[in-house]
Amino acid sequence: MISITEALDLIDQHAAKSPAQQVAALEAVGCLLAEDVASDIDSPPYDKAMMDGYAVVAADLASDSAELDVIEVITAGNVPTKKVAASQAAQIMTGAPIPAGADAVVMIEQTQMIGEARVRIEAPNITAGKNIMPKASSLARGATVLSAGKRLRPLEVGILAEVGRDHVSVVPQPRVAILSTGDELVEVGEMPGPGRIRNSNGPMLAAQIAAAEGTPINLGIARDVRQELTEKIARGLEADILVLSGGVSAGLLDLVPSVLAEHQVVQIFHKVQLKPGKPIWFGKRVVSGKTTLVFGLPGNPVSSMVCFELFVRRAIGLLAGRTENELRSAEVELAEPFFHRGDRPTLFPARWVNAAQRTAAPLAWKGSADLAAMAAADLLLQFPAGDAEYLAGDRIAGLVL
Amino acid sequence: MISITEALDLIDQHAAKSPAQQVAALEAVGCLLAEDVASDIDSPPYDKAMMDGYAVVAADLASDSAELDVIEVITAGNVPTKKVAASQAAQIMTGAPIPAGADAVVMIEQTQMIGEARVRIEAPNITAGKNIMPKASSLARGATVLSAGKRLRPLEVGILAEVGRDHVSVVPQPRVAILSTGDELVEVGEMPGPGRIRNSNGPMLAAQIAAAEGTPINLGIARDVRQELTEKIARGLEADILVLSGGVSAGLLDLVPSVLAEHQVVQIFHKVQLKPGKPIWFGKRVVSGKTTLVFGLPGNPVSSMVCFELFVRRAIGLLAGRTENELRSAEVELAEPFFHRGDRPTLFPARWVNAAQRTAAPLAWKGSADLAAMAAADLLLQFPAGDAEYLAGDRIAGLVL
Repeated sequence: MISITEALDLIDQHAAKSPAQQVAALEAVGCLLAEDVASDIDSPPYDKAMMDGYAVVAADLASDSAELDVIEVITAGNVPTKKVAASQAAQIMTGAPIPAGADAVVMIEQTQMIGEARVRIEAPNITAGKNIMPKASSLARGATVLSAGKRLRPLEVGILAEVGRDHVSVVPQPRVAILSTGDELVEVGEMPGPGRIRNSNGPMLAAQIAAAEGTPINLGIARDVRQELTEKIARGLEADILVLSGGVSAGLLDLVPSVLAEHQVVQIFHKVQLKPGKPIWFGKRVVSGKTTLVFGLPGNPVSSMVCFELFVRRAIGLLAGRTENELRSAEVELAEPFFHRGDRPTLFPARWVNAAQRTAAPLAWKGSADLAAMAAADLLLQFPAGDAEYLAGDRIAGLVL
Repeated sequence: MISITEALDLIDQHAAKSPAQQVAALEAVGCLLAEDVASDIDSPPYDKAMMDGYAVVAADLASDSAELDVIEVITAGNVPTKKVAASQAAQIMTGAPIPAGADAVVMIEQTQMIGEARVRIEAPNITAGKNIMPKASSLARGATVLSAGKRLRPLEVGILAEVGRDHVSVVPQPRVAILSTGDELVEVGEMPGPGRIRNSNGPMLAAQIAAAEGTPINLGIARDVRQELTEKIARGLEADILVLSGGVSAGLLDLVPSVLAEHQVVQIFHKVQLKPGKPIWFGKRVVSGKTTLVFGLPGNPVSSMVCFELFVRRAIGLLAGRTENELRSAEVELAEPFFHRGDRPTLFPARWVNAAQRTAAPLAWKGSADLAAMAAADLLLQFPAGDAEYLAGDRIAGLVL
């Protein structure tokens, strides 16, 4: 059986960055830009007023005050029609083009109308260029404004909009299909009869995928019937990643491995030295140049949750072209002593005693089928294999939930 | 003119937690639970096998090995039909109910079939309860599994699914309407003619709202025409927050304040000691018990971006019932000397020199209309008002983008 590290290395080898795709800019936040984006405009397209006020000839204000003739009112969205000469001014609004002749803007708070078309100005330090943003000083036509590889934030959506781009080429969010398998599963809205349980892993995985910046595609429940599994797995393989919940332990009706093999999915590993989550299965399908990664997660809800956070989240990040560590890992200090017993490395739920100081205490924990107890967990502590006594103050790796 | 702190205090006074609402569990991630959720089932609903293997009478394995008659095969989703007596075993799969009479499960790896219906077991330490999860040990019918006030994570979506809840009462994501105003604006897909600019604030605000865990509602562009503004503002006031972009400076055609007044929106503050972002406007409308907060953001893209991050993001958090600090603030160390000039507190774009060590350097910066230069910014440094020389190593507040 391989170790967690070996499993992660295998995922790293097989999860390559997805090909670029055009997506709506608003859907591209968090994605890596896959093209250099150039401006199609000069911005500002003209020398622009940075303030509401009066466009003036700076030389008129050499003595810090003047009375000027107002020759025009230029609102945002309109263009000046007159040239401003000495002793003249044009009233102007923020964003409007500076009229010819003017070389500075005096803000309205420093002015006072003293007649129908005459303004008195008291304003020190008015020099050429004051309160004017020169043409093309923000964006120059043809110049690259965003380079390939940039991770897009809301700010960059604004920049893309400025240069006319409501769609853009990015490394897209991975599409992750979820298929819950097992005759024992009923939908969340149903009351489970004898021997049945609700499909809680499906919705939980969908929420985990969204939180990991993947796009979940829920294929629902497949019974342990070859025909149904075959059809739904075929649909799931159209995604970038197919996550199967259940069906990968050594049980009698676990048809999943044979159906995957029929679909040309090749096993990369099965079982990892890990508790909970040992039965995890990972494989890959490459058909006509299209690659799909396949994870088989244990049906047990806690195992499913942990395997997703450790392994599937990493694969989603790699497909999206991210290189930073996808694990929200933290070194924490035990707030109280703990005896850990187990022959496998174990992820054990814990709560923050003091989140800022990174001190944590293990929770009372009935075992891996006990999802409800996890609501109290802030993180998982990663205890190494072997029985060992830990003391308060010991440092241990943690995975923040 | 009020300070940033005074403005934030006023927002805190007026932005109250939204009333609870039923939403789909998958849409509720990040929201605060507004009800105590009780389990409607026992989980497991029966004593359950934790392993694939054989359900046995533990006493039969007192000597660590035994040969037993296999009386039945119990798959997940089926119920046992026979009682296991001494010297008998039932083959069982993970998740299946333990048959009457059996009190332990031996995992399949410790067993070997030695005939049509006979199994040999070599397994030390098999005591009563081994590999069995007792009925109701995870969830007990009627017991609270999640308490009001809990912030929902993907994990809690799984727990909700276990107790049959695909909808749940939460403090909902605030709905935030965006209305861009101004005759100078054209849509992103258009080439701006003379005196026009693209509406970059609309898409940027939509992306910022989504990143702040609000639900953006884009009302598009309203011309500086009373009728159009009146209609669109009326629609925007149906949201929890209305964000107006542009139209709040002292310009001639700034009809917005009067249209807001007609709609019974009361001004709370106008203008904050801040650069960029001084003209920000904040108000509130309470009609028939429905409250809408209204922000008027400056049309300048950088001012709009900064005002959103400082003020609107905080209001979204408060409506959503969050109490932790909504500002992604950090104290950083200047990596190089900097002379800051200005009569207002200024948010100045900077880049990380070393993000882990929190050292940052101000960017070259043409001023507040220069959104494109912000793509290089990792954070905004918050310089106090006044001209001052800062040295490398000086510590200063920052707002991470």
